[in-house]
Amino acid sequence: MSPKLEVCLTPALIPLYNVEEYVVVVIDVFRATTSICYGIENGAEAIIPVSQVEECSAYREKGLDYLLAAERNGEVVDGFDFGNSPFSYTKEKVAGKTIVLTTTNGTHALHLSRSAKKIVIGAFINLTTICNWLKQQNENVLLVCSGWKNNFNLEDTLFAGAVVEQLKGSGFVVDDPAIAANDLYQIAKDDPDAYLKKTSHSERLKALGIEADIEFCLKVDLTTAIPVLDRERLVKLQ
Amino acid sequence: MSPKLEVCLTPALIPLYNVEEYVVVVIDVFRATTSICYGIENGAEAIIPVSQVEECSAYREKGLDYLLAAERNGEVVDGFDFGNSPFSYTKEKVAGKTIVLTTTNGTHALHLSRSAKKIVIGAFINLTTICNWLKQQNENVLLVCSGWKNNFNLEDTLFAGAVVEQLKGSGFVVDDPAIAANDLYQIAKDDPDAYLKKTSHSERLKALGIEADIEFCLKVDLTTAIPVLDRERLVKLQ
Repeated sequence: MSPKLEVCLTPALIPLYNVEEYVVVVIDVFRATTSICYGIENGAEAIIPVSQVEECSAYREKGLDYLLAAERNGEVVDGFDFGNSPFSYTKEKVAGKTIVLTTTNGTHALHLSRSAKKIVIGAFINLTTICNWLKQQNENVLLVCSGWKNNFNLEDTLFAGAVVEQLKGSGFVVDDPAIAANDLYQIAKDDPDAYLKKTSHSERLKALGIEADIEFCLKVDLTTAIPVLDRERLVKLQ
Repeated sequence: MSPKLEVCLTPALIPLYNVEEYVVVVIDVFRATTSICYGIENGAEAIIPVSQVEECSAYREKGLDYLLAAERNGEVVDGFDFGNSPFSYTKEKVAGKTIVLTTTNGTHALHLSRSAKKIVIGAFINLTTICNWLKQQNENVLLVCSGWKNNFNLEDTLFAGAVVEQLKGSGFVVDDPAIAANDLYQIAKDDPDAYLKKTSHSERLKALGIEADIEFCLKVDLTTAIPVLDRERLVKLQ
């Protein structure tokens, strides 16, 4: 039987799927999964996603050599090592380190997907690598968009559509959300940055002064590492 | 402040909205809301949507002059007056009658929207009428797609996108799902029937032998009645 390629448009819809029948790709393009892919590519030993700043700072007390990443309103929280910008996840800063990353939407999506066969992390910067890997699995694939506060957002859906674009010739059976995501990607692909400027989220990001981050998050195929969930830690898929 | 125009892509996402701040349009294009619009246009006194065949048949026992509509797998259920085809809702059959209509997805969406300022029913057959009415309300508008088993479907999203198309010049603030729905509508609008043939749902409908129903459900502006919820009954908006 042909494997399925489906898109879960928000974490609120994850309970509609028998997640244990799928390999799940968690998507939170702005900026968590981009930072995770970049950090793992640059030699981070592991990245631990948590949802609350308090959970993150709890790792400080464990006395180990964690780097802690947390921001509120676009500013690094006092006492933390850096924020959520992918530019913080350079080789110099992260090689050999374990990073605790605060990300509400992404952590929520990971948590609800935890019974999946495998959970990997996708972003435009590892797009082709992850698509090639998915083609080799012969498994049902569920692309989980982390969205915004449990609702749909365009940027994660566009990435899902980009994955569908690369996989659709490979014999997967697609569902309606996958068709929609792929069609939206067709509209946006020539200039996703311009396309996403239509969204209200874009105004919010601009107000945070992170336009350079956004531009980075839309770059395609900069990296070849695939982060995979191993208990609560994201590590490099071997 | 400008009113909002937002799209709730599935009933599962309704709890994310403060529904009481919106006029809600419930959408279940194939076929419940099309049949409801057509029935109210043709003089039905009221239409009562229920989710289970058993609830529907309970009305028989109330001894009043109800018409009961229920089908399973595309066939009228034994002992019922008709199924869910809009062609059953002609003047000859429905004028002056109250109809109890079994519709799982649509009833679910109506139930979860019940605290809205007002709930009206939309379908392609009353598209322009409902858009003109919405423009006059000066209220936040939430377009609720009934979807399929709590998940996203393309046909309801396309209708939402058609409403956004007519309203977007009228000063509403739109959200990401509204942008996405409108963009999908742009792709599909020249031939929505062909567009929807891409979907798996289309195969399911074809298997039910209701292609003529589908063609009817995609016709635009056949009617001018707006069904509105009055307690548990849908009646003609005066």
